[in-house]
Amino acid sequence: MAAMAQDAAGIPHVVIIGAGFGGLETAKALAKVPVRVTLVDRWNHHLFQPLLYQVATAGLSPAEIAIPIRSVLREATNARVVMATVTDIDTSSRTIHLDDGASLTYDYLVVAAGARASYFGHDEWQEFAIPLKSVEDAVKIRRTVLLAFERADRIEDPALRRRELTFVVIGGGPTGVELAGSLLELTQRVLAADYRRVSPDEPRVILIEGADRVLNHMSEESSAATLASLQKMGVDVRLGKLAKNIDAQGVHLDDELIEADTIVWAAGVSASPIAKALGAELDRGGRVKVNQDCTVPSCPEVFAIGDIAAFPAEGGGILPGVSPVAMQQGRYVAKSIAERAAGETPPPFVYYDKGTMATIGRSQAVAETSGLKLKGFTAWLAWLFVHLWYLVGFKNRVFVLLQWIFSYVFYRRGARLITHVDAPVEVELRSRRLREVATEKGKDVAA
Amino acid sequence: MAAMAQDAAGIPHVVIIGAGFGGLETAKALAKVPVRVTLVDRWNHHLFQPLLYQVATAGLSPAEIAIPIRSVLREATNARVVMATVTDIDTSSRTIHLDDGASLTYDYLVVAAGARASYFGHDEWQEFAIPLKSVEDAVKIRRTVLLAFERADRIEDPALRRRELTFVVIGGGPTGVELAGSLLELTQRVLAADYRRVSPDEPRVILIEGADRVLNHMSEESSAATLASLQKMGVDVRLGKLAKNIDAQGVHLDDELIEADTIVWAAGVSASPIAKALGAELDRGGRVKVNQDCTVPSCPEVFAIGDIAAFPAEGGGILPGVSPVAMQQGRYVAKSIAERAAGETPPPFVYYDKGTMATIGRSQAVAETSGLKLKGFTAWLAWLFVHLWYLVGFKNRVFVLLQWIFSYVFYRRGARLITHVDAPVEVELRSRRLREVATEKGKDVAA
Repeated sequence: MAAMAQDAAGIPHVVIIGAGFGGLETAKALAKVPVRVTLVDRWNHHLFQPLLYQVATAGLSPAEIAIPIRSVLREATNARVVMATVTDIDTSSRTIHLDDGASLTYDYLVVAAGARASYFGHDEWQEFAIPLKSVEDAVKIRRTVLLAFERADRIEDPALRRRELTFVVIGGGPTGVELAGSLLELTQRVLAADYRRVSPDEPRVILIEGADRVLNHMSEESSAATLASLQKMGVDVRLGKLAKNIDAQGVHLDDELIEADTIVWAAGVSASPIAKALGAELDRGGRVKVNQDCTVPSCPEVFAIGDIAAFPAEGGGILPGVSPVAMQQGRYVAKSIAERAAGETPPPFVYYDKGTMATIGRSQAVAETSGLKLKGFTAWLAWLFVHLWYLVGFKNRVFVLLQWIFSYVFYRRGARLITHVDAPVEVELRSRRLREVATEKGKDVAA
Repeated sequence: MAAMAQDAAGIPHVVIIGAGFGGLETAKALAKVPVRVTLVDRWNHHLFQPLLYQVATAGLSPAEIAIPIRSVLREATNARVVMATVTDIDTSSRTIHLDDGASLTYDYLVVAAGARASYFGHDEWQEFAIPLKSVEDAVKIRRTVLLAFERADRIEDPALRRRELTFVVIGGGPTGVELAGSLLELTQRVLAADYRRVSPDEPRVILIEGADRVLNHMSEESSAATLASLQKMGVDVRLGKLAKNIDAQGVHLDDELIEADTIVWAAGVSASPIAKALGAELDRGGRVKVNQDCTVPSCPEVFAIGDIAAFPAEGGGILPGVSPVAMQQGRYVAKSIAERAAGETPPPFVYYDKGTMATIGRSQAVAETSGLKLKGFTAWLAWLFVHLWYLVGFKNRVFVLLQWIFSYVFYRRGARLITHVDAPVEVELRSRRLREVATEKGKDVAA
């Protein structure tokens, strides 16, 4: 007997792909609905992505912003969790296929597989510009930054040190802005004090943005305030600049080569490739163009929500790829499934925009809702409160709050670990370069 | 000009290999001595090894038991830190060579490179039995245990599930005992509640010890109390049993094959191979047989301390490989260097044995000093206090204490993350096995 969808009692089976904000919220909201739920994710944990940049900059440990999916759904007795990657979706037989050869059939499918870094057709840049989407990415950025300091501390020539201590962030959206601010604090204030040969003014953080302002999803006022804060901190912001090429030398702009080993990619995302399997029309970012009720055209039992979906926004365009959209859609879809089971027709999804915010560094942020614009310390407190509030898991909230208090008071970062330095290419590359430097200098690098 | 040892002022250069308990303590104690110190370690962090088993069992995050070496030595202005692996020591030219091609010359050398897992000549077992010496090892054990539950949760046949849910610890010393107790709590109490298909009595933890008692460095009374505690918790303790072979099937004893995928090696260590480079006599465990003043025979300017040294104990044998020995030797060596610089002859090193302890699980431990033997809850409180006291870094102490309070009150483990599942062989092996299981069962594994 092959994969079966409904059990003997005829309870509908809802399969959810992805345990991000959208998928997890759907599963939680379905806990009281008479359906059977299977949540499939590549990882065993839900990740609070808005704080991932703090793992990358050694402020938080991975476990503080991640929580096992099964823990979250402990009380949702109708839900099962399967850790696997979905390789294909067959909408005609209502079946999804997993990477281990197993399959699952569904009555309703909720595709909430999210987005990944997109290099605008230049996948070869991925080797040099690290994305920031997973715990692994964040740990890799942290390791790369710390190893750059280890090398810099052993190089006497300031010109050679300069390259090691140049940190480039590409993309001036919320992730890029938050990462750049946090990187500046980590490198100039925390690490420069630890590494004897590095002076506080040596590390450079360069933020490159193609548009003429950062945070261009916010008001011009907020963009200007953010730019001023970044520049005051010491971030070198380059507006209206595009990366023409990224390679082992660094980032090539139109008119300049920025030599750097540490480059982070925060410039663009595209929908998870599983979107293609739905056979529906996709937008330029690979997102599924969904109906007003979040269903996929011609598949009324398939929903697509969150970053993988292109939902038409009022006044043109699509809803932004932010967690409130995904969470509201998740709750909406769960309600829709309950309504449909009761023979009702769900109303269209309406997004309630509570506003948007970004933090720039220690005690600086911008926030705006329809009626209100905040900046500076007030906005920063609002940012802290909102992020603690939405962070999943009581214990995580306590620990993150404590970490922030510690960092604020002592200006230190606790998670400065270099781990998993086992990628042979990287290690070889590093030691080769260091050997060249050592030979060039013709002397004991550690003398 | 090649590597130089003394600077113009003629200040002696002390090179320390290893930032474990011994090396770090030496560097700290040398902070006020008029010498120049260079501390070389493979990692950028000091690791509090006695709590590593708690990272392996998802109770603590790596950053909570590790601290950047440079942070510890921030006030030691005469110390530099170099992150590198030492490949060779040339005692005639007083030079050490690093993996990146650089070299360092010394006036005094302190070799504190520690020990590593030893498979008694069966290095091929390493593929199947994970050691517990580094952060990476601990994270690998954690991942392996969690992945076993993910697989077990998708297998219907209890016999097939049994293999996935068998966790074998080899070696009944402190590490093996503490790990086995903690694994039992993690698997039977924490994880079994999260995984729908796993019942609390299914996971098995088997502890294998070749001698006729666990903790055979302690009194028979403590061994008996520990055995009773372990058995009461539900650990299957096999005394007087040796692993004849370890392979993909599991652990082969004389009279039995224990089928298991998750096997942890806590049975033996040998000194770091850099010991060989000293050209001195080694004992069976590869340790350097040192003089009463911790120097290496015929190299009066080279000290070996901690797990890499075989220091004759009163009444025969050698001092045990525990942190108090390494720390006391570190302080002794720093003092010796100061005395020698002042033209004095240091007295021999004398170890002050404060006692030994091991924890068995939630609120159970054994502890003994020369006059006193504790067990049960009192010993556990003593264990908590001592470990918090010696944990390096104020912040780590606060966070570990909080984690313990949380675990104690809520019976949860926060750090249940599966990360770095990128070793292709492992993933392939796992999915292949799962596919076989799926095919064998001929049905939807997640149904």
